[in-house]
Amino acid sequence: MSGIQSCELCATAGGDVLYSDQELRVVLVADALHPGFCRVIWNQHVAEMSDLSEAQRARLLARVWQVEQVLRQHWQADKINLASLGNMTPHLHWHVIPRFRGDPHFPQPVWGTQQREPDQAVAARQAALPALRAALQAALSTATTKE
Amino acid sequence: MSGIQSCELCATAGGDVLYSDQELRVVLVADALHPGFCRVIWNQHVAEMSDLSEAQRARLLARVWQVEQVLRQHWQADKINLASLGNMTPHLHWHVIPRFRGDPHFPQPVWGTQQREPDQAVAARQAALPALRAALQAALSTATTKE
Repeated sequence: MSGIQSCELCATAGGDVLYSDQELRVVLVADALHPGFCRVIWNQHVAEMSDLSEAQRARLLARVWQVEQVLRQHWQADKINLASLGNMTPHLHWHVIPRFRGDPHFPQPVWGTQQREPDQAVAARQAALPALRAALQAALSTATTKE
Repeated sequence: MSGIQSCELCATAGGDVLYSDQELRVVLVADALHPGFCRVIWNQHVAEMSDLSEAQRARLLARVWQVEQVLRQHWQADKINLASLGNMTPHLHWHVIPRFRGDPHFPQPVWGTQQREPDQAVAARQAALPALRAALQAALSTATTKE
């Protein structure tokens, strides 16, 4: 990793790397409440989507859609939450979060007030993470149409 | 508006309409804490980005980037927050939120814990909304490259 030393996403991978190339990487985040939480991280330290060219944006988002589709198809997520915030870490990254009715924050965003303790469904998803990880890696090994 | 009667974004415009076409609309949201909060709303009642074709996604996001650029250029936002959540209203829409150090939630997401009361900078941005609105409308009147 290179870039700005004080930036967490320059200094570290930011999670369990599922895919990486010269421009970007996709990581699985260890999240006790929201297993399957992924991030698509632009390698270069830029803050905003409009700092990228149109082609770069398309390549970054093509990876977001790949992750979204795996989360929908393999886990039948009730909703996908997508966000690029970066207020604390202004290094371009997308949160791709599978959401389920009854998950610890639903229907609030994961940044909102927790609604309930994690239940057996959360534990079951934690246990199913290796299979999800394999499915994500398989999908991400497929070139996107923009490449 | 047509679509699902119980859906707020099928039943209402969802804000002050700055731009609309057959596929989508862009609205300015009345938000006392975060003036300049915009939404880009897909007109048809679909839930996820992966429910759209690649061309539809590109057209929707081209409008998001137009809004982002105006918020950066005209208001020098410290950060742009982008999100497609839809847990409560599963009708595809993007939040495009200008964020400022010292705004009521910074550095938390606007869905997180409020950090402070709105200050004079928030009041100044509220007062500047008409000019921002005009700039957004001017930008959105420009065709996107995907059209």
